[in-house]
Amino acid sequence: MKRNVKSRLEQQIEFILEIDKLKHVFRKSRLIRSERFENDAEHTWHLTVMAVLLSEHANAPDLSLPKVLKMLLIHDLVEIDAGDTFAYDVKGLEGKYEREQAAANRLFGLLPEDQRAEFMELWEEFEARETNEAKFAAAMDRLQPVLLNCENEGQSWKEHGITSEQVLERNRHIGDGSSALWQHARKLIGRAVEQGFLK
Amino acid sequence: MKRNVKSRLEQQIEFILEIDKLKHVFRKSRLIRSERFENDAEHTWHLTVMAVLLSEHANAPDLSLPKVLKMLLIHDLVEIDAGDTFAYDVKGLEGKYEREQAAANRLFGLLPEDQRAEFMELWEEFEARETNEAKFAAAMDRLQPVLLNCENEGQSWKEHGITSEQVLERNRHIGDGSSALWQHARKLIGRAVEQGFLK
Repeated sequence: MKRNVKSRLEQQIEFILEIDKLKHVFRKSRLIRSERFENDAEHTWHLTVMAVLLSEHANAPDLSLPKVLKMLLIHDLVEIDAGDTFAYDVKGLEGKYEREQAAANRLFGLLPEDQRAEFMELWEEFEARETNEAKFAAAMDRLQPVLLNCENEGQSWKEHGITSEQVLERNRHIGDGSSALWQHARKLIGRAVEQGFLK
Repeated sequence: MKRNVKSRLEQQIEFILEIDKLKHVFRKSRLIRSERFENDAEHTWHLTVMAVLLSEHANAPDLSLPKVLKMLLIHDLVEIDAGDTFAYDVKGLEGKYEREQAAANRLFGLLPEDQRAEFMELWEEFEARETNEAKFAAAMDRLQPVLLNCENEGQSWKEHGITSEQVLERNRHIGDGSSALWQHARKLIGRAVEQGFLK
C-alpha cells in the first residue's frame, strides 16, 4: 500500500500557518494610549520580552528561562479554537478547561509526534502552575495587563466594572512567581485606586 | 546632593511600556486570508515559535536556541523609531543603518546598563549575520513572509511588482541558516511562479 504522508517539515509548516490565526484572537486590553484591542500574538510577544528582562526577580534562583520562553510562546494557542476568556468572567470560565483541551489536541496534533508531546507538556505545565517556570510564566501573563491598565487609566477594569478587590485576588498569583514583582504590582494597583482608575 | 534615580525595576518597566509601540509598526505582508497588515510584534511572535519548531533544520548542529529566541524577540524593536523598511525598497534601505543605530541607542538606553549592553550586542549580532545563531534567526525572518505570501497568492509581491528573481536573491540568505529550509522555500517560490502568483 502506498503511503501518502506529510514529511516532518510539511507538518511543521502546516502548524506554523495554522497558528497565524492567533493574530485574530482579541483580548479585553487596549494598547497603551490607543483605542485598538490587543491580540493574543502581540500580547505573547510582549510577555516573552518581559520574561527575558525580569527573570532576575523570580523567587526561584535557578529558573530555566528557555523553558519559560517556550511555555509563554505557546500558552495562548488554544484560544485559536477556544477564544479568549476575560480573566474576571466567572461564567466564561465554565467549561474553559474542556474547550482548551480539545483545542490543544487539535492544534498540537498537527505536529510531528515528539513536538506534539513537547508542546502538550509545556502547555499542561503552564496550566497547572506548579513548577517554578510555570509560576513565573503565569506571573508575566498577569502582570502585563496590569501594566497596560495602569497606563490606560484602568481601561479594561472600568469597562467591565472590576473592583480593586477583584484585581488583587486575581493577580496575587504574581507573588507565586515573584514576590518583588507582586510588591510592585500592588503599589501600582494602589496608585490606580488613589487616582480613581479603579474602584 | 540628593539623587533621584529610577530603580532597576522601574527602568525595566519603563522599557516594557515603551516597546508596546512595536504593535503599531505595520509591515507589508497581510495576515493569511485577511486584509489586515501584520504588525512587527505579532510577526516577531510568529518567528520565535518557528525557531523553536525548526531549529533541527539549522546547518549548525550546536545552535544555541535560547540565544536565537532572545535575538528574534528584540530584532525589530529599532523599527519603533526607524519604521519598517520593505525588504525590496532599495531607496528606503539608504540611511537605514544610521536610523536604526540611533533607535537602538535610545530604546536600549532605557534599560539598566548590563541589559542595555546585552540587548545591543544581540541586535548587532543579528544585524551582522555572521554567527550561527544570527544566520538562523535571519532565516526565520525571511522565511516567514515567504510562507505568508505563498498562502496569500503572492499578495505583497504582486502589490509591489516584485519578480521571482528579486525574491530568490533577497531570500537566498535562508540557506546560510538552513539549507533544508532554503530548499523548501525555493520549492514554494517555484510553485508560486507556476500558479501565476509571482512573475
